[in-house]
Amino acid sequence: MAEDLARFLSDNDARIRDELFALLRIPSVSARSEHKGDMARTAEWVRDSLSSLGFETVIHQTKGHPIVVGEWRKAAGAPTVLIYGHYDVQPAEPLELWTSPPFEPTVRDGKIFARGSVDDKGQFFLHIKAVEAHLKTRGTLPVNIVFLIEGEEEIGSEHLAEFVSVHRETLKADAVVISDSTMYAEGQPSILSSLRGLAYFEINVQGPAGDLHSGIYGGAVVNPATALAQIIATFHDESGKVAIDGFYDAVRDWEPEIRAQMRELPADDAAFLKEVGASALGGEPGYTTLEKLWTRPTCEVNGLLSGYTGEGAKTVLPARAMAKVSCRLVPDQKPGDVERLFKAHVARVAPKGVTVTCEHLHGGRPWKAKLEGPIYDAARTALESAFGKAPVITGEGGSIPVVSDFEETLNAPVLLVGFGLPGENAHAPDEWMSEENFRVGMRAMAEMWDHYAAAVKQ
Amino acid sequence: MAEDLARFLSDNDARIRDELFALLRIPSVSARSEHKGDMARTAEWVRDSLSSLGFETVIHQTKGHPIVVGEWRKAAGAPTVLIYGHYDVQPAEPLELWTSPPFEPTVRDGKIFARGSVDDKGQFFLHIKAVEAHLKTRGTLPVNIVFLIEGEEEIGSEHLAEFVSVHRETLKADAVVISDSTMYAEGQPSILSSLRGLAYFEINVQGPAGDLHSGIYGGAVVNPATALAQIIATFHDESGKVAIDGFYDAVRDWEPEIRAQMRELPADDAAFLKEVGASALGGEPGYTTLEKLWTRPTCEVNGLLSGYTGEGAKTVLPARAMAKVSCRLVPDQKPGDVERLFKAHVARVAPKGVTVTCEHLHGGRPWKAKLEGPIYDAARTALESAFGKAPVITGEGGSIPVVSDFEETLNAPVLLVGFGLPGENAHAPDEWMSEENFRVGMRAMAEMWDHYAAAVKQ
Repeated sequence: MAEDLARFLSDNDARIRDELFALLRIPSVSARSEHKGDMARTAEWVRDSLSSLGFETVIHQTKGHPIVVGEWRKAAGAPTVLIYGHYDVQPAEPLELWTSPPFEPTVRDGKIFARGSVDDKGQFFLHIKAVEAHLKTRGTLPVNIVFLIEGEEEIGSEHLAEFVSVHRETLKADAVVISDSTMYAEGQPSILSSLRGLAYFEINVQGPAGDLHSGIYGGAVVNPATALAQIIATFHDESGKVAIDGFYDAVRDWEPEIRAQMRELPADDAAFLKEVGASALGGEPGYTTLEKLWTRPTCEVNGLLSGYTGEGAKTVLPARAMAKVSCRLVPDQKPGDVERLFKAHVARVAPKGVTVTCEHLHGGRPWKAKLEGPIYDAARTALESAFGKAPVITGEGGSIPVVSDFEETLNAPVLLVGFGLPGENAHAPDEWMSEENFRVGMRAMAEMWDHYAAAVKQ
Repeated sequence: MAEDLARFLSDNDARIRDELFALLRIPSVSARSEHKGDMARTAEWVRDSLSSLGFETVIHQTKGHPIVVGEWRKAAGAPTVLIYGHYDVQPAEPLELWTSPPFEPTVRDGKIFARGSVDDKGQFFLHIKAVEAHLKTRGTLPVNIVFLIEGEEEIGSEHLAEFVSVHRETLKADAVVISDSTMYAEGQPSILSSLRGLAYFEINVQGPAGDLHSGIYGGAVVNPATALAQIIATFHDESGKVAIDGFYDAVRDWEPEIRAQMRELPADDAAFLKEVGASALGGEPGYTTLEKLWTRPTCEVNGLLSGYTGEGAKTVLPARAMAKVSCRLVPDQKPGDVERLFKAHVARVAPKGVTVTCEHLHGGRPWKAKLEGPIYDAARTALESAFGKAPVITGEGGSIPVVSDFEETLNAPVLLVGFGLPGENAHAPDEWMSEENFRVGMRAMAEMWDHYAAAVKQ
């Protein structure tokens, strides 16, 4: 235990909270052009908070919102860590569903309610304060640290990958740390070890040149909506497994010890079922719900459109039918390979009498942490020390494309360690972050740099 | 040949055309409330044209547009014929696609261009003038005749079935004649012998209570859009035949001689394919295209809707999916039986984990003429005499619900004999009726009453 760091954070608790609240008060909504000024103001606020600690800072303008970079590189011979976060937030609407105003942070029941509290202002800010604890108590840091705080995460991080690639020398690091995720449960520190990738398609089926009367023409013309349904019906076998030829060829089974640990996590299918509100669960047989969500690939229809969809009856034989279909990918499925397999499958099962096209709209690689090396060892030790409990390994069914970008461009392991909690309403009204998680997370992250420096030295 | 009738019609050709043009000039668009006055005016015009011939006439008000009934019942001991037609027309829009104004009849290349020329003003008016030929040359008619001309055919004949039922004694007839259809080809008189029925359904598949993120939840929740596609894919077997259990049980094969005659009709699959603009034809194997359209039942998807259907990619796992599906029915399929079979099928194939509901939106009985008896014999003789060619038997893939209503409520055979032609643009800009068909059809229908009276006497 680093008593000096813990004492500093404890002594400065009220001031740190005031600073966090000041940050949360700026409505940095990246999706709305009327907040352009707020975005610039937030970037300056973040820059100033780093400059005041002795970081060399630059605000980089992009075609969208600015990126803040702050470097502290005075630990000669020590490793370098890149800490990534984002200062932009989701729109707050619908405002009437907030108990207290979204940009006026309010504490109730140990929760800090505000838009951006947990996603991601509270989480990157605790890293700045953890670093401050080192600099203010010891006058130095045991590692070199680069902060990269962007303003476009909630709108797709459009300019980040190129920025990282162009500035790869400046951003060069031995490890990347991101706190933008949740813990598995209250009091249970967690390391997020995997993200699913994505291959998103649009299928268009063209039948007759125009809509036809289904009475006058029905029975002699191939119906594109029926054809589309027949195509989609081939995507899964009866058990619920994806039936696209070759789809599972590259899929790796998780390590037995991680699978065993996932199976030991307290999980409640009845509660999950109630949460989603379905009549029964489904999906690939032979896996628990968590394994299905975190470790197995999927093929989901995201949208369907054909013919008449209004009220009542219209006897139209539609000219075309459209489906949006996306596959979630797991290691080592490559989006390009899945695109090839998917398109070949659709072409193979396409009925005669219609023209079927399949367009790949966008893709993202899956990611899986190696879960070994000094940064993971340091994280485990620091989290257990601060929370009094060893971290568990979790997965995530969604995608965070920037993680693979960091890993590949910088050739450095990425540690995803988050301090959100289930039910935090990240993109909804009444977003909150646990005060306790903010404090304990800050302490853990401060302590982590000691462990990391020591682990690298060994 | 009835020389007196033919001579009267020939001598009065210019006047009859002027009268038809006056009728066509009234914009009796039933779908548009701004034409309510025009509708009343047209009903009065039709009433007056019948009154002036000695018919007892009544304009019956309905909750919609008025119905004109005219009776001539002075042929004691002779049979009674009900002639049905409609004085309302489709909206003329888009006006800019008309070569000449829709309500200013114009003759080009032997075609009378005007909205309502063939559908149905020209066709019921020729019956009035055929009757006039008898009354003006002979002072009498060989049969009793009741005209029933409604004003809501283009908006679903909402008030007609009840009207016919309530006035079944007034409308009592030995045969019903309707001219509101087309001849198979130019110069080829045709008797329309069958109409397909309809059973129209809406299927709703409910998955989770709300839309879910397809990354975070995908793989453990049954996707309602996928489930819907799987349901629809069971509606046909690989050959294109409907695969709903019991669907064909009540389907009657057409009489071999009618089927043989249909196969002899000049039909061109390549031209049909070009007309619909599809890449290949489809449907149930073992039948020609005309047989598929006229004599075989279908199951067509009319609409599909689920999840995200806008531009680009949205990773949603939809809460629900909807399909509109309708079956075209042939004798002796009963809409109620098909409803029961369809719902049982959907319930049987519905995947677990979703809630599937299937609602019957509306239905209509199929119809098939008996093609024998005095009215058919008279029609055949009169058509062959006037056109110089025996009529062919055709079918129609769509539905005209009122035909079954007449047959069942009045317990009388219905003769569908039309004088339109392929390409007549009935519901489109530049609607036309052949001048030649108007003249020859009028002569044929005038002559038909002599043959009908003689046939009934035998």
